[in-house]
Amino acid sequence: MAERSAPTDGPVGPDPRRRSERARRAVLTAAAELLGEVGFAKMTVEAIAARAGVGKQTIYRWWPSKAGVLLDVFTELTGSGSEERLPDTGDLAADLKAVLRATVDEFNDPVIDRTARAFTAEIQHDSAFAEAVREQQLRPGLEAYKARLRSAQEAGEIDPGLDLDIAVELLTGPFHQRWLQRTAPLTHGYVDALVDTALRGMRPPG
Amino acid sequence: MAERSAPTDGPVGPDPRRRSERARRAVLTAAAELLGEVGFAKMTVEAIAARAGVGKQTIYRWWPSKAGVLLDVFTELTGSGSEERLPDTGDLAADLKAVLRATVDEFNDPVIDRTARAFTAEIQHDSAFAEAVREQQLRPGLEAYKARLRSAQEAGEIDPGLDLDIAVELLTGPFHQRWLQRTAPLTHGYVDALVDTALRGMRPPG
Repeated sequence: MAERSAPTDGPVGPDPRRRSERARRAVLTAAAELLGEVGFAKMTVEAIAARAGVGKQTIYRWWPSKAGVLLDVFTELTGSGSEERLPDTGDLAADLKAVLRATVDEFNDPVIDRTARAFTAEIQHDSAFAEAVREQQLRPGLEAYKARLRSAQEAGEIDPGLDLDIAVELLTGPFHQRWLQRTAPLTHGYVDALVDTALRGMRPPG
Repeated sequence: MAERSAPTDGPVGPDPRRRSERARRAVLTAAAELLGEVGFAKMTVEAIAARAGVGKQTIYRWWPSKAGVLLDVFTELTGSGSEERLPDTGDLAADLKAVLRATVDEFNDPVIDRTARAFTAEIQHDSAFAEAVREQQLRPGLEAYKARLRSAQEAGEIDPGLDLDIAVELLTGPFHQRWLQRTAPLTHGYVDALVDTALRGMRPPG
């Protein structure tokens, strides 16, 4: 019988992964609070570290900048990102309305709204951060919609000739523009009407 | 006969309105140049004034902030704002494609792109400025589209029951989202396909 090897899960004592996870959550909470209290411009990595009770180097080990921390706050609060999938009950309109109503509720939450506005501003100036946001948030989000539309296309619910990239943008672009520019309120009634209007043009011919 | 009154157009010598207009243009040019050279964060009202050869107080008399100057740079470069109207040749798809192709060309111009990104970032932080952008740029732009759609509705080209606010967002939101997030290139082919796809859902029934 081979000698039993030592456990590979780390040293005796508190699990370092659990400790890291606690520190990570403390940083996200501190960043979300500071953003609300002082705004993005006045928020510093030092202040986040101090409030979270971690060293500044701990933050820089995990995140490239304060904007990067906020991106993770947003991902955490909205449960969005690479694992994102839309419901598929077989009723495309109902599924899209459910998702967009939930998104309305999220973006009407001041913490999520504030976080998303901070990194929307930041991606205009910082192209490396913009690429991170695209990879972590935007493309997975658009892909999740596209997969749901592809499934509807296969089920014969929408036109097989439809350009799905444009179809996704018809569903998400109006919402995004209205949120960003605050030209009108985001409500459940609005996204229901948006889905109905956008889908009119996606139905199979005849 | 009544005595002739003195001319009311100002004193003899250089017309002060013309002098103001020269100063205004010098400020806009200086701001556009500085934005390209140093970026929004490092650009100051002092530096704009120095380059334009005017006093700092002249800038503050006309604009509330450096972002306000950039808003006028954008309005000037794109010819947009309250006087904006869409062409109306009687062919809605052709008119929308013409306008959106021109908008593609504008947003692919680095000076316009940079200016629009700077104030898109700024409206996330500064709500008074955001309201100015909505009043000067966004609402007139959306209204111009809406007026063209209303005319198409009256001509029987699109469904009389269509919600025109949502219809406008279906045409402008996808473009805006793609530009802002740089998820894919802005081309003439793209906006042609966008117009065709969006209009499919707007045609009158039957």
